[in-house]
Amino acid sequence: MPDAYPGRKLSARYPTDLPAWQALRTHYRDELRHRSLKELFRRDRSRAERLVLSAGDLTLDYSKNHVTSKTLKLFTRLAKESSVPESIEAMFSGERINVTEDRAVLHVALRSKISDRVALEVPAVRDLWGVLTRIEEYVHAVHAGEIVGSTGKRFRNVVNIGIGGSDLGPVMVARALRHYWTDGMRFFSVSNVDGTQLADLRSELDPAETLFVVCSKTFTTLETMSNARAARAWIVDTLGDAAVEAHFAATSTNHAAMNDFGIRPDFRFGFWDWVGGRYSLWSAVGLSLALVLGFETFSRVLLGGRIMDQHFRLSPLSENMPVVLAMLGNWYNNFFGAETHAILPYDNRLDRFPAYLQQLQMESNGKSVRTDGKRVRCETGAVIWGEAGNNAQHSFYQLLHQGTRLVPVDFLLPATSSGAAQSLQDLAIANCLAQAEALMDGFDEGGLAPHRVHRGNNPSNVLVFGALTPETLGQLIALYEHKVFVEGVLWGINSFDQWGVELGKRLADSMTGAVSRHEQYEGSNASTAALIGRLQELRGH
Amino acid sequence: MPDAYPGRKLSARYPTDLPAWQALRTHYRDELRHRSLKELFRRDRSRAERLVLSAGDLTLDYSKNHVTSKTLKLFTRLAKESSVPESIEAMFSGERINVTEDRAVLHVALRSKISDRVALEVPAVRDLWGVLTRIEEYVHAVHAGEIVGSTGKRFRNVVNIGIGGSDLGPVMVARALRHYWTDGMRFFSVSNVDGTQLADLRSELDPAETLFVVCSKTFTTLETMSNARAARAWIVDTLGDAAVEAHFAATSTNHAAMNDFGIRPDFRFGFWDWVGGRYSLWSAVGLSLALVLGFETFSRVLLGGRIMDQHFRLSPLSENMPVVLAMLGNWYNNFFGAETHAILPYDNRLDRFPAYLQQLQMESNGKSVRTDGKRVRCETGAVIWGEAGNNAQHSFYQLLHQGTRLVPVDFLLPATSSGAAQSLQDLAIANCLAQAEALMDGFDEGGLAPHRVHRGNNPSNVLVFGALTPETLGQLIALYEHKVFVEGVLWGINSFDQWGVELGKRLADSMTGAVSRHEQYEGSNASTAALIGRLQELRGH
Repeated sequence: MPDAYPGRKLSARYPTDLPAWQALRTHYRDELRHRSLKELFRRDRSRAERLVLSAGDLTLDYSKNHVTSKTLKLFTRLAKESSVPESIEAMFSGERINVTEDRAVLHVALRSKISDRVALEVPAVRDLWGVLTRIEEYVHAVHAGEIVGSTGKRFRNVVNIGIGGSDLGPVMVARALRHYWTDGMRFFSVSNVDGTQLADLRSELDPAETLFVVCSKTFTTLETMSNARAARAWIVDTLGDAAVEAHFAATSTNHAAMNDFGIRPDFRFGFWDWVGGRYSLWSAVGLSLALVLGFETFSRVLLGGRIMDQHFRLSPLSENMPVVLAMLGNWYNNFFGAETHAILPYDNRLDRFPAYLQQLQMESNGKSVRTDGKRVRCETGAVIWGEAGNNAQHSFYQLLHQGTRLVPVDFLLPATSSGAAQSLQDLAIANCLAQAEALMDGFDEGGLAPHRVHRGNNPSNVLVFGALTPETLGQLIALYEHKVFVEGVLWGINSFDQWGVELGKRLADSMTGAVSRHEQYEGSNASTAALIGRLQELRGH
Repeated sequence: MPDAYPGRKLSARYPTDLPAWQALRTHYRDELRHRSLKELFRRDRSRAERLVLSAGDLTLDYSKNHVTSKTLKLFTRLAKESSVPESIEAMFSGERINVTEDRAVLHVALRSKISDRVALEVPAVRDLWGVLTRIEEYVHAVHAGEIVGSTGKRFRNVVNIGIGGSDLGPVMVARALRHYWTDGMRFFSVSNVDGTQLADLRSELDPAETLFVVCSKTFTTLETMSNARAARAWIVDTLGDAAVEAHFAATSTNHAAMNDFGIRPDFRFGFWDWVGGRYSLWSAVGLSLALVLGFETFSRVLLGGRIMDQHFRLSPLSENMPVVLAMLGNWYNNFFGAETHAILPYDNRLDRFPAYLQQLQMESNGKSVRTDGKRVRCETGAVIWGEAGNNAQHSFYQLLHQGTRLVPVDFLLPATSSGAAQSLQDLAIANCLAQAEALMDGFDEGGLAPHRVHRGNNPSNVLVFGALTPETLGQLIALYEHKVFVEGVLWGINSFDQWGVELGKRLADSMTGAVSRHEQYEGSNASTAALIGRLQELRGH
């Protein structure tokens, strides 16, 4: 781990010093701050037709944003001046752009074909297709009833055990593609350390039909291994010691630990240091997905990612969807002062997509230090939040319409239903479009009671696509991955480490003794000490 | 509906004009802005013991906040100057404090006993115990197998059909109290308009064992009635027309509509105009909960609410937990400029508690207009967000520790496990305390690489309680209800209306024809018109 920061050509300057940023500042102050979205539409009738981008199966209408043609030109200049094109190439060519960990960043390789020639010379990249083939064979054997539980029963339940990227990715995709589940297979997940998720599954599932997939690169993650051990104890209690090897598969690289646990060598699936946790669903961490969706469907998710990769790599900056989304994100974050960004999908299957993006964007770009070791001079990652469409209308939209805060919004909108009557999806569509319109236009007729006035002028993106398929889902995920990357490049930060989680882990280790074995608390925080005492009392000690 | 605003004694002045607010402004600028939490602890050793409040079974450690004794005195003065005590009394006595709808606000009555004498003279308040008794009898009959499905099978599946408060309340509580579910009963929910939730349940549940509870006060809510009709069609298709009356119950007051649908008169449970949607789980909207938890357990949730009500009504302002939480919320929102507030429970059963509070706080206080009809001059409702404890550590905590934004945090922490090994809950506890400590203390030893530095100085509340029981859950919900109320009083807004959702509903109605029947779009928004065209293309028209 290098403690010094290598000199890099990329984003070597503070973004706020770049001419395009300064031009944007003037432009914002003089031309946009006091101009409403409605006025922008009045001045430019072609806006709705022009401010639209396509990428693969996705269409982005970004006309309802506080931008003009001039803003967009400056966005492109800003992307150029902050070395976005070079950075994209650096990632795809396998440069070690994760500088604090001295690693390449190659989730894009995971969904590439050999012919794409993505970083083929980086060690282990050529191994990935072999692992995919092994996953395909394994999944096929499970579905064919060739790999079965210890009693000979077919597997019907797949339980993913992981946390962070090893949980949110599989959970989000499994829920999003519920209409693609293989007949007879069901997906469950266990992630949190308190053990209640597994305790509940024990009362619902037949262990003889249950296959656990343990996802932990190091096979040492506290939460994951606690849950894995509890699951193992359940299998041992109900089916005997010998059943462990039949009922567990793992995605990890720690063979010694997998030996100890009892994972069969042929039920192990590896990935590599150039795959970050929050980018890992494209790797062997997708195993539980491949099991519930079938390998074919899982491959189609990868294909979707690849389609977006090609768009990202080849499109000019002004037509590059991730680049435009990133520049818009920065625009609201650093110029309009918006601290958050809401993700609002109008298909209930995407109900965990906001939580997935929450990790993706906040863990990637919640940073204050640049790759050159200096402190940033602008705001970085926004708080990402949201819930599924109509439900959210009956929850927090009140604040979007009449609160005091500006919340930029991304609406996600499939044209067709993902498994119910089209007439119902039509209602969802009407609601989504109505909300986007209401947020922009507001409502303030003369004489209206003040509490009925909507101020309007709230920006939004609308991302439309034909249907929620594996391909479009893959494109959506990769779209936001690349958006996050471009934001990170612009701000000069490393989007691929997560040093901010280390301190809490270390302190938690040092506190476990005091909490659970009544040892002395070794720290100096008086509040912690008092809380430990109080909790002991509450537990009757 | 009165269009004029009645003159009110409560919160008649802008809070920013109050002497205590102005004193807080000076105090913030001169004494607190540049003083770290660590320094506050160094100056005052007794802080950890002193800055603690009890209410019922809850203990709040608020020592890790940017406050001194002086701040707290000013908080109390501010509460007094903004008429918080009078407002509390106005609510409990049944005044029509929801001024834009000219209604009383009496969710507190729903959990009161007659002897509490909460607004007994308000019309219909005395009816509530009768409805509770009918719910108890109904639930008992279902559990005893006296009320059964049309084929004579016992009900095993309760499906709540509702949206907003009629969904989030039941869903959140059912998940939180999973360890209290009645043997043999399972809870499901259907809310969103796109119909996929019900479509999936159809492949999982036996209709003969399934009881639907339709929650819609008006029995006209678009999403709820779409889903209710789809559920009805499923019952009719599988069990015949006559089965409808056996398989549906409803909480509504629209008897004509319930007649049309086929709800039996004795399976109807009413509530009243003084119960807002986001406060309705205490009412008949809790029917699905009573069915899955048993009436006894449901009553214990009500009891928890009542315990908090008594604390709120009787405690002095300086020891009043909802009041202190509200003043802290305002402190970060309006003085420190924090746009959001994170809710982080360290028990996975509380995983939807943040979403529940998101509605409760944002729909209540996402307002810009005061009760006197004037525009507010301060920030109002913050963006509330969060996920369950350890999962969130592996997701967005990176930003809390090293991002550029201040995010105040509430940790929720039970001392004992809610259904798994205590050793696992001990790990959750250690992690929670470690995170609170890390957020406050940070980490910046000399010579540390910049990307490893934690700035610290991030405030948090820690709410501890013995166990996640029905009573403590009731207390937690009521605590935040009252916090929201006090914030609203302070800002001079009406926390009990939601006019901001009307415009979107109206526009959606007007768009449905254009989306689903290819009628002409009647509006003037060019972006909407273009999007409708694009969606039609995507659907192959």
